[in-house]
Amino acid sequence: MKRKGLITVLSGFSGAGKGTIMKHLLEEYPGRYNLSISATTRNKRIGEEDGREYFFKTREEFEEMIKNDELLEYAEFSGNYYGTPKEYVNRLVDEGKDVLLEIEVNGALQVRKIFPDSVLLFVTPPSAEALKSRLVGRKTESMEEIENRLSISSKESLLMDKYDYLIVNDKVSAAVKEVHDIIECEILRTGRNSVMIEKMQRELALYKK
Amino acid sequence: MKRKGLITVLSGFSGAGKGTIMKHLLEEYPGRYNLSISATTRNKRIGEEDGREYFFKTREEFEEMIKNDELLEYAEFSGNYYGTPKEYVNRLVDEGKDVLLEIEVNGALQVRKIFPDSVLLFVTPPSAEALKSRLVGRKTESMEEIENRLSISSKESLLMDKYDYLIVNDKVSAAVKEVHDIIECEILRTGRNSVMIEKMQRELALYKK
Repeated sequence: MKRKGLITVLSGFSGAGKGTIMKHLLEEYPGRYNLSISATTRNKRIGEEDGREYFFKTREEFEEMIKNDELLEYAEFSGNYYGTPKEYVNRLVDEGKDVLLEIEVNGALQVRKIFPDSVLLFVTPPSAEALKSRLVGRKTESMEEIENRLSISSKESLLMDKYDYLIVNDKVSAAVKEVHDIIECEILRTGRNSVMIEKMQRELALYKK
Repeated sequence: MKRKGLITVLSGFSGAGKGTIMKHLLEEYPGRYNLSISATTRNKRIGEEDGREYFFKTREEFEEMIKNDELLEYAEFSGNYYGTPKEYVNRLVDEGKDVLLEIEVNGALQVRKIFPDSVLLFVTPPSAEALKSRLVGRKTESMEEIENRLSISSKESLLMDKYDYLIVNDKVSAAVKEVHDIIECEILRTGRNSVMIEKMQRELALYKK
């Protein structure tokens, strides 16, 4: 009997490097992970493609998905909707495939409610200063937007302890290895190995005196 | 502020390869792990040394330790006492050192009560047949003793799901890596990183609007 896929949720401050970690995970462990592609109403950035980074939707389309209960979670964030199409995740998990979800804090806690067995990882830079430099450095947001994101981060930080694991993203290669190792180790949890446990119990019962 | 040491308890069927895994962990990660040496009343095997594998005690000495509450846990097993001297473990944990304990099932669950934060690993061969061959192969027990150990294993198997992780010891090198990785990942749990979490919360609070 095949195990169900593991759902790993990656959250973290805007600018913490979640996207980079995800990219490396997919590159370094080809075929190992399955990405859930989110739907969003935010503008496409240069180099992004519809159906690859995100499913880009209009507000009207997105609200239609909400209405039809097609989303595992969704949230409004910096004036845009972000959400996870439900059907795709369910299908992957049933096929025994491990799924990575990159979701902001409130959405992550929604996923945990629907999938109590999911693993929640929080990515943070080593300091608030490092976070600010990264946001400034990537030159995709205005100073006002950066201040806004840092303000959101301060609120998100209050929910860090709701997560299972903390990834301090100082060196990307180390953070990528940590995420991968956590997933591999979570697969070894007794709660995910009841088939093997029951097999040993059955086989050993023959030796009971 | 230094983190407290992590207590990892390794249990498993007699013949599952716990001792071999422990030996490899100490050899492959020199200085990384601290072994708690148990006290026992069982006979010294060839090659074993007092104060290295075990503290070998007479029944009278062991019962004196029980009376003086000097043991973190103890159990009688195959007619012999096995126990973990308490003081040594407490000292290592306070110094931030990660401790490995090789303890049988009932003792492991006692440790969990005293240290709820400890991590419990159960080692099993891939099948009951593999377990029996290993016991026969090591030629340290009589056939009667082997049957007795398998009978004990059948009882122990009913408590496997009280453990956190299941290590299927098929290849020793893989099992050793799994144990090491589990410990490294457990150190990343949010519950063990409250100092870092509070630091980020404090630093980001300055950006709150």
